[in-house]
Amino acid sequence: MTLSLSPLPLYAQVKESLRERILDGTYPPHAQLPAESDIGSRFGVSRITVRQALNDLQKEGVIFKVPGKGTFVSKPKAFQELTQLEGFAEAMSRRGYEIYNRVAGIDSVAAAPQVAQQLGLAAGAPVTEIRRIRLLNREPVSLEVTYVSPELGERLRHEDLAVRDIFLILENDFGIALGKADLRIDAILADHALSAALQIDEGMPVLRIERLTHTAGGKPIDFEYLYFRGDAFQYRLQIARRSPTQETP
Amino acid sequence: MTLSLSPLPLYAQVKESLRERILDGTYPPHAQLPAESDIGSRFGVSRITVRQALNDLQKEGVIFKVPGKGTFVSKPKAFQELTQLEGFAEAMSRRGYEIYNRVAGIDSVAAAPQVAQQLGLAAGAPVTEIRRIRLLNREPVSLEVTYVSPELGERLRHEDLAVRDIFLILENDFGIALGKADLRIDAILADHALSAALQIDEGMPVLRIERLTHTAGGKPIDFEYLYFRGDAFQYRLQIARRSPTQETP
Repeated sequence: MTLSLSPLPLYAQVKESLRERILDGTYPPHAQLPAESDIGSRFGVSRITVRQALNDLQKEGVIFKVPGKGTFVSKPKAFQELTQLEGFAEAMSRRGYEIYNRVAGIDSVAAAPQVAQQLGLAAGAPVTEIRRIRLLNREPVSLEVTYVSPELGERLRHEDLAVRDIFLILENDFGIALGKADLRIDAILADHALSAALQIDEGMPVLRIERLTHTAGGKPIDFEYLYFRGDAFQYRLQIARRSPTQETP
Repeated sequence: MTLSLSPLPLYAQVKESLRERILDGTYPPHAQLPAESDIGSRFGVSRITVRQALNDLQKEGVIFKVPGKGTFVSKPKAFQELTQLEGFAEAMSRRGYEIYNRVAGIDSVAAAPQVAQQLGLAAGAPVTEIRRIRLLNREPVSLEVTYVSPELGERLRHEDLAVRDIFLILENDFGIALGKADLRIDAILADHALSAALQIDEGMPVLRIERLTHTAGGKPIDFEYLYFRGDAFQYRLQIARRSPTQETP
């Protein structure tokens, strides 16, 4: 196995070459990669070069390291379509995943300023906070922290939040039609609490979504922070080009 | 300043309290936070507790540390609406941002497997790779790596990619109407190359988007990797609830 002449630095060539072998199935999900020294001699590069390639692939979530065991190929990321407003279980169970929610807490709390603002309440007003860890095929993939009014919270407390989406309970059991949701998406690092909830190391990448859901009548009803494991999940969506307009000068 | 009785651990109370003061403008963007020891004595907690609160806020991108100088408040994140397919400059200039693209490279390369698959080419087919660093108000916010056919690449080479979006050049100059784009969004960590391009530390959070844009006729024309600084950018979108359906058993 030799590296082609290329403007890429050596470590990047090793990285792309390993990525190809992962994507083409030579190294399938959960397969162990050869030792650094073996990879180095196959490519004819130093172990330091191999390590840099592996570090980059790990940052991207393509592989993961188990201390004392070796380096393994990550599973393909689960994904959710963002085209329609759907709960996670709704979207995932349709695609054959097993979903289970570990309900980590249902508490009455004073609304933090952002929560209050989103729900149209005074800061410090009482709200119900529901913390759920979403397990996809028995592995944690997201932490969802939901804020609703105390009235709704009291009713939700009696529902089976371990297997049912809040959206479906609101619609099918409570008869509340849902309308639009506003989402904000960014990337953060796992802090101590996220690391414990998602069973990842502190400092690993996390996709964070703030989602404010409205009733069909336009009233904000449900504000959530969704934290997805960056190595296990992606969002997908399709958007259309607006009708072509003039370029503004 | 005293902390209220709360089920939250002490460091989390300090964190939320600092976050409130940042969001309410007590500590505006770029303001320096008091020293750890000062924060500790104001809240009546240990310096270790303060440090844990600051570490968490830093992981979230709310503050940043400058070695030897102190801890500072981050600017509010810039955001782009995901409702319509738009180039970054299009979206941002409408909101009064100054945009400039540093063109880091335009090269003929052999298509990597994923690039080839997305564009409907054979693996290894020649493509043009355009690497641009997007500067928002003179600070790097994203790296965009674009793949197009050699024919389009040759034409784009002669355009002013430093100030114009490729979408607008395709439409207004080349007369190619654009249709839909498929996006995949996840979170990764900055590797060495991203750290250099975006002027952030390795291991900082990065929002990654894979975007495949089609012509109005449905032909894939432009495949891109967009890497946004997690601490400086968020995506926003509004999605509607599908017409309520039966809960599947």
